[in-house]
Amino acid sequence: MTTTKTSTVHDLYPEIVEWRRDFHQHAESGWVEFRTASLVASRLEEWGYEVKAGKEVVDEESRMGVPSESFLKEQEGRALAQGADPKWLPYLSGGFTGVVGLLDTGKPGPTVGLRFDMDALDLKESSDASHVPVKEGFQSRNHNMMHACGHDAHTSIGLGLAKLLSENKNELTGKVKFIFQPAEEGVRGAKSMVAAGVVDDVDVFFASHIGVGIPLGQIVSGANGFLSTTKINVDFTGKAAHAGSNPEDGKNALLAASTAVLNLYGISRHSAGQSRINVGVFEAGTGRNIIPSSAHLKVETRGETTEINQYILKQALNIIYGAASMHDVEVKTDVVGEAKTSDSSPELKVYVEETVKDIEGVDSVISDSPFGSGSEDATYMLERVKDLGGYATYLIFGTTLAAGHHHEKFDIDESAMKIAVASLEKLVSHVEKFTLK
Amino acid sequence: MTTTKTSTVHDLYPEIVEWRRDFHQHAESGWVEFRTASLVASRLEEWGYEVKAGKEVVDEESRMGVPSESFLKEQEGRALAQGADPKWLPYLSGGFTGVVGLLDTGKPGPTVGLRFDMDALDLKESSDASHVPVKEGFQSRNHNMMHACGHDAHTSIGLGLAKLLSENKNELTGKVKFIFQPAEEGVRGAKSMVAAGVVDDVDVFFASHIGVGIPLGQIVSGANGFLSTTKINVDFTGKAAHAGSNPEDGKNALLAASTAVLNLYGISRHSAGQSRINVGVFEAGTGRNIIPSSAHLKVETRGETTEINQYILKQALNIIYGAASMHDVEVKTDVVGEAKTSDSSPELKVYVEETVKDIEGVDSVISDSPFGSGSEDATYMLERVKDLGGYATYLIFGTTLAAGHHHEKFDIDESAMKIAVASLEKLVSHVEKFTLK
Amino acid sequence: MTTTKTSTVHDLYPEIVEWRRDFHQHAESGWVEFRTASLVASRLEEWGYEVKAGKEVVDEESRMGVPSESFLKEQEGRALAQGADPKWLPYLSGGFTGVVGLLDTGKPGPTVGLRFDMDALDLKESSDASHVPVKEGFQSRNHNMMHACGHDAHTSIGLGLAKLLSENKNELTGKVKFIFQPAEEGVRGAKSMVAAGVVDDVDVFFASHIGVGIPLGQIVSGANGFLSTTKINVDFTGKAAHAGSNPEDGKNALLAASTAVLNLYGISRHSAGQSRINVGVFEAGTGRNIIPSSAHLKVETRGETTEINQYILKQALNIIYGAASMHDVEVKTDVVGEAKTSDSSPELKVYVEETVKDIEGVDSVISDSPFGSGSEDATYMLERVKDLGGYATYLIFGTTLAAGHHHEKFDIDESAMKIAVASLEKLVSHVEKFTLK
Amino acid sequence: MTTTKTSTVHDLYPEIVEWRRDFHQHAESGWVEFRTASLVASRLEEWGYEVKAGKEVVDEESRMGVPSESFLKEQEGRALAQGADPKWLPYLSGGFTGVVGLLDTGKPGPTVGLRFDMDALDLKESSDASHVPVKEGFQSRNHNMMHACGHDAHTSIGLGLAKLLSENKNELTGKVKFIFQPAEEGVRGAKSMVAAGVVDDVDVFFASHIGVGIPLGQIVSGANGFLSTTKINVDFTGKAAHAGSNPEDGKNALLAASTAVLNLYGISRHSAGQSRINVGVFEAGTGRNIIPSSAHLKVETRGETTEINQYILKQALNIIYGAASMHDVEVKTDVVGEAKTSDSSPELKVYVEETVKDIEGVDSVISDSPFGSGSEDATYMLERVKDLGGYATYLIFGTTLAAGHHHEKFDIDESAMKIAVASLEKLVSHVEKFTLK
Repeated sequence: MTTTKTSTVHDLYPEIVEWRRDFHQHAESGWVEFRTASLVASRLEEWGYEVKAGKEVVDEESRMGVPSESFLKEQEGRALAQGADPKWLPYLSGGFTGVVGLLDTGKPGPTVGLRFDMDALDLKESSDASHVPVKEGFQSRNHNMMHACGHDAHTSIGLGLAKLLSENKNELTGKVKFIFQPAEEGVRGAKSMVAAGVVDDVDVFFASHIGVGIPLGQIVSGANGFLSTTKINVDFTGKAAHAGSNPEDGKNALLAASTAVLNLYGISRHSAGQSRINVGVFEAGTGRNIIPSSAHLKVETRGETTEINQYILKQALNIIYGAASMHDVEVKTDVVGEAKTSDSSPELKVYVEETVKDIEGVDSVISDSPFGSGSEDATYMLERVKDLGGYATYLIFGTTLAAGHHHEKFDIDESAMKIAVASLEKLVSHVEKFTLK
Repeated sequence: MTTTKTSTVHDLYPEIVEWRRDFHQHAESGWVEFRTASLVASRLEEWGYEVKAGKEVVDEESRMGVPSESFLKEQEGRALAQGADPKWLPYLSGGFTGVVGLLDTGKPGPTVGLRFDMDALDLKESSDASHVPVKEGFQSRNHNMMHACGHDAHTSIGLGLAKLLSENKNELTGKVKFIFQPAEEGVRGAKSMVAAGVVDDVDVFFASHIGVGIPLGQIVSGANGFLSTTKINVDFTGKAAHAGSNPEDGKNALLAASTAVLNLYGISRHSAGQSRINVGVFEAGTGRNIIPSSAHLKVETRGETTEINQYILKQALNIIYGAASMHDVEVKTDVVGEAKTSDSSPELKVYVEETVKDIEGVDSVISDSPFGSGSEDATYMLERVKDLGGYATYLIFGTTLAAGHHHEKFDIDESAMKIAVASLEKLVSHVEKFTLK
Repeated sequence: MTTTKTSTVHDLYPEIVEWRRDFHQHAESGWVEFRTASLVASRLEEWGYEVKAGKEVVDEESRMGVPSESFLKEQEGRALAQGADPKWLPYLSGGFTGVVGLLDTGKPGPTVGLRFDMDALDLKESSDASHVPVKEGFQSRNHNMMHACGHDAHTSIGLGLAKLLSENKNELTGKVKFIFQPAEEGVRGAKSMVAAGVVDDVDVFFASHIGVGIPLGQIVSGANGFLSTTKINVDFTGKAAHAGSNPEDGKNALLAASTAVLNLYGISRHSAGQSRINVGVFEAGTGRNIIPSSAHLKVETRGETTEINQYILKQALNIIYGAASMHDVEVKTDVVGEAKTSDSSPELKVYVEETVKDIEGVDSVISDSPFGSGSEDATYMLERVKDLGGYATYLIFGTTLAAGHHHEKFDIDESAMKIAVASLEKLVSHVEKFTLK
Repeated sequence: MTTTKTSTVHDLYPEIVEWRRDFHQHAESGWVEFRTASLVASRLEEWGYEVKAGKEVVDEESRMGVPSESFLKEQEGRALAQGADPKWLPYLSGGFTGVVGLLDTGKPGPTVGLRFDMDALDLKESSDASHVPVKEGFQSRNHNMMHACGHDAHTSIGLGLAKLLSENKNELTGKVKFIFQPAEEGVRGAKSMVAAGVVDDVDVFFASHIGVGIPLGQIVSGANGFLSTTKINVDFTGKAAHAGSNPEDGKNALLAASTAVLNLYGISRHSAGQSRINVGVFEAGTGRNIIPSSAHLKVETRGETTEINQYILKQALNIIYGAASMHDVEVKTDVVGEAKTSDSSPELKVYVEETVKDIEGVDSVISDSPFGSGSEDATYMLERVKDLGGYATYLIFGTTLAAGHHHEKFDIDESAMKIAVASLEKLVSHVEKFTLK
């Protein structure tokens, strides 16, 4: 069969860079990716994808850590003012900022799923003149929001790949499903897309990340070592009283929270593997001379296995409720994020290694690398695909970092996006080599 | 009316000293005053008193902090070997070591009650050659038991007074009731004698103590400042596990207890007055490499008023149960002692001041003096007598102390006993002066 | 001597109310009373007072809890925009917002000192329609600043009195010294005015407060029960690290602060009297998954005597530094407020009682009343005056309160200001009656 | 060469069992193995070994966790009364209870070292009739001392092997060195024998243990997973005070220790591997109403590597000293035990596997097995031998256990001793096969 290949990754690269810088400049944090998601949907539709967005691909009950109504409203307005596509906003409104685009070749073949995350961090970007986004004029315009983890590049890689595949549709078989996910930071979003069934028909699944300590030119065919994690917010509510005149009338929420903190860190190690506990934020009290009536903690637990994480979580909740009981204060806990552990499918890793080693710019492919004892909610998708009999892997595309992930001066070598698009294109295009094995 | 006064306090003094030294040498701690109580009962009966002992004067349910069965048995055996009166032991057996002796003059008149406590402390007496009981050969023979608070003198004062009054019965009117109380240390015994009704018929009540920082020759007509107090034992029970191989299987009682300790001391002050909390003893764990499955605390709360003590106690129990819940361990709390606050009757204090000021050896009488922020369970008796319309006071007879109360070198100037007997004899003999006012 | 009395308190009352409402509307918190102080200085000068302001009456080193340079600057601009007197701003600039006005009669006689505090609280005023300042249109225009303690009235009473006395100067003898103090809230300002020597020449001293639970028509001739207090800010600085990948590299400031909290509340009670400790505010950490590198506490200690407060403070500092050492974090403590205990001079209280009982509107004068286990830094002035041989008292002028002090709906019955001005005028005018005794 | 083999393990087995039961009956805990060591020395000498005992083989400075002088004296007396060899007691006196026996064949060849530990646990043996040592009449006679870990068997295996080799000396080459070590429990003894140089000339080293969860008939050729550990005792010393009358005069050691406990368990996990911390024993205070002036903790730290253990230990000491500083109490820490991690030499494991697989009773040989996240101080010897260029391994000889190690009903299948002696005899006899490779 003769086909006319209209574009290559080389042709598209300038546009991919442009997109990435535009997303960087209009960084949007978890569940408020209104502008980003609307533009993604708009372009996918333009390129011939069957597009779904909003509640159809984001299960309402399964979302975690969603901001307040008023903040969602305000951000939607901000997005519109910054050029969001008005056609798609009604779907996304209220924080349903997931988008799925399907390319159906009409020919028999497997369904390949690809996941790209779109959200920025709650972080103020550096205004230092040496910081490339400042120098090149694309630093974030949005207060306390910054793409300091590379999701601007992920979204752009996804778009570049989508455009390329749409132009080369004739060469493909089966279906290709693009999953653009909100709220990966805080591991809040993937669970709700899985619950909406978006990966239930996927046979071969690729998630990917750039950077993570891997040098430019290196690709990891299947990362491992994701820690299972749960994020909880804790609110203690006691009773205020004047600390001088009648302290005995108070119910001290700050003291309950301090007691919880000491005991949370003291949860026993688990002999089956690594575990973690952290209280990252503690805010309590209103005035020096008032017995504090409120205290808020941001807590996370982690485990080398889901079981270890569950063990730590169970102990943590017991401690939190016990501490409240000790001081006769009320307490409320909310799970605002959760991720699993997952391993990449060994067979799929072999296919990746064979397929991408000759891509231009690729120096080496390694079979695995720990994900830095960090967590990722793409693991929900990997696990679901594998549970249904499919294959899944988590790729890392190395790049040079100006500063570490989540740092105010984080920046990437954009050429990694070219390697990523080329690699993923080849992996999708040749997937029958894998599935026919 | 002509009477033949057979004895005076001067005649009896050598015998009183002898008794005191004998009791000192055979010191018996709370609820095991088998020898002391049996000898008291025996002598009172000999002198014509109507004597009751054991369950009739000690309510079983209201006893607090009673030692184990096996210890009670062993101590009863020890007492017998040391000369206890076998006739009375069956009444006292099992830790019912209270004795009441009634002198009924047959003439109309008020019932005067007097309380004397008999128990020693759990303390090893000094073996220093300079310590008078060592020098004079009457140091305690009983392991880890010592009269370091003066109750040996109290019992001897009571006996001296009882003998004197029995010989001078004709000069008296109404009734005189001697209450010899066990287990004042740890404030464990008075409540059970009150519950048995021993002060219900008392019109005028005297409790007394020697020393307490008052110099020899001075008498306090009515002490105040008794702190209300509750003594609790706390037992946490968790689950042992090897700290190296499977720490996550343990339930750490030591950690729960440590958490309780920090929060117990942190109970808020009360604006209505002084409060106290103390964890005096902490014993936990069996081996360095085992997650500790048991922890025992000895705790006490105090308050300037009974309400304040109840406030501290309520908080303390809440903390203890909350700490157990945090670490998923069981906990048991036992009230092993309790005392109230009480004020002496002002009218009775005036009577005391007028009556004792001319007693030989008395230099001055002061109207009140704080009881050193300590606690006393005679307060149960004072409160009961006053509640039923009677009058009650708590006297202090000053004496020179070799070392402070509860010190291993505690010793008194025995001549204070002479002043005490003489004062109490006059107070009892002239009580109609008070009641007829 | 014939004098023409130009005004009475009745004549001035409408103006006093107008001032009070103007100050209320332009509430200024501690050390930024630029508008208030400049207007006070301006008027005193207009009425013939010898006026000193700024560093001459506020010792730089002794100021406590001064806001940041940038906030001071911003607030000075705000004050100017709201009508501050530009003549006086240079004196006050940088947070030296104290003013002293001297009326020298030229005649021999004692120097009478009067202290009025001018600062508002850091509190958002209620916008409820039922709140009188809202209804009458004089609610605070300044963000998070509100006169919820009555210092707007105090300043207006001071001005009313100053105007009245200046008009009646001929009837007076000696000198009258008006001390307008900044930053009483948080007990931060008085010490610096005392250190500048403003009360060193005062023979008879009056401080006063309205409200404090005393009903309208009642005056307290000398409040007591001020708790000695110290306010400290605590900053722990550790080292951040990712809680998942390398927690062992962190130095946990939040954990150090939690440990401090539990132990601070656990400081032992003092047998000599009441004590207090409170941690009113706890703020720590930046993100859930980061070992927290900073923690800030707002702490206060109190004692029934200055010695007890010093005892608690010493223990507190020891605990704070020990907690930092445990977790290898840095710690910095700042004393941001301090007040003493003080008793009013008994002789002066008698003078007050005799003098004010017939003032119109006064129903009763009581000799003392506890100041609600609260603290006041006017005690620095009372103590200094008494130390130098003078007499000092702290008056309370009762008033009806819409809500308690420091409440967002606090409001007063303004007629109490009339009683206060009339009482103080009489006390100043007849002071020779007292000093000649 | 023709040799006359006088005995086999079968011949010796009854005697080995007899020895084991005798040692079991006269169980001696760490550093007081006076009877055991003297009998070992006596027999080795009798069989022609060059014997050294006491300070020559136990470095005084490097001993850890040595009991008090008085206890050592008392136990030496007890040992003599129970049949210790008086000839050797002077060497062992004071707790130098190590013995080394050298068999020099006079022929060239490697020096083989073998280590056997001799101490019992501080544990009361079960008196249950079903417990074999009870049934067979050899339960421990010594109060609170029990061979519940199998060292009675280890010592007997060593003696059996020594006797066997001495009789077969002619068949051997090189030297064989028997190291009988005291105080393995609490990992207190090995370091001092290494410091005395006892393994410095060893080329091939075998340590061994019976049981540890391995079934009878199985041998582990080289155990791994020993956690590095440090054992510390902590003594806090404060100041007593009456908790009612003057609590502020106390310095609360119990409160300092509780604070330490909470923070010790809260030491951060280490990302490089497993870590442990435990506070196994907490004893504090003398009486309920006394501010506690003393507190004692038994603490242990562990790490998957020596570096991790050092990290935990450093944090722990910092916490302990910080907690003392917080409460102004003194603190003293003593290292009373220490062990390293170590890996067995792979080459030696292969030799073991090949050599012992055909021994009678051996079903299988496995190449490694985790040592149950426990610790062993033979690791000091393994590490020293390997550092000097030699080979070392840690064998496990499986056996059936009546109850787990350190349990009051621990008991073994004695036939495992036969397998152990036979295996070690073959390993020693054929060592040239290994060294000549």
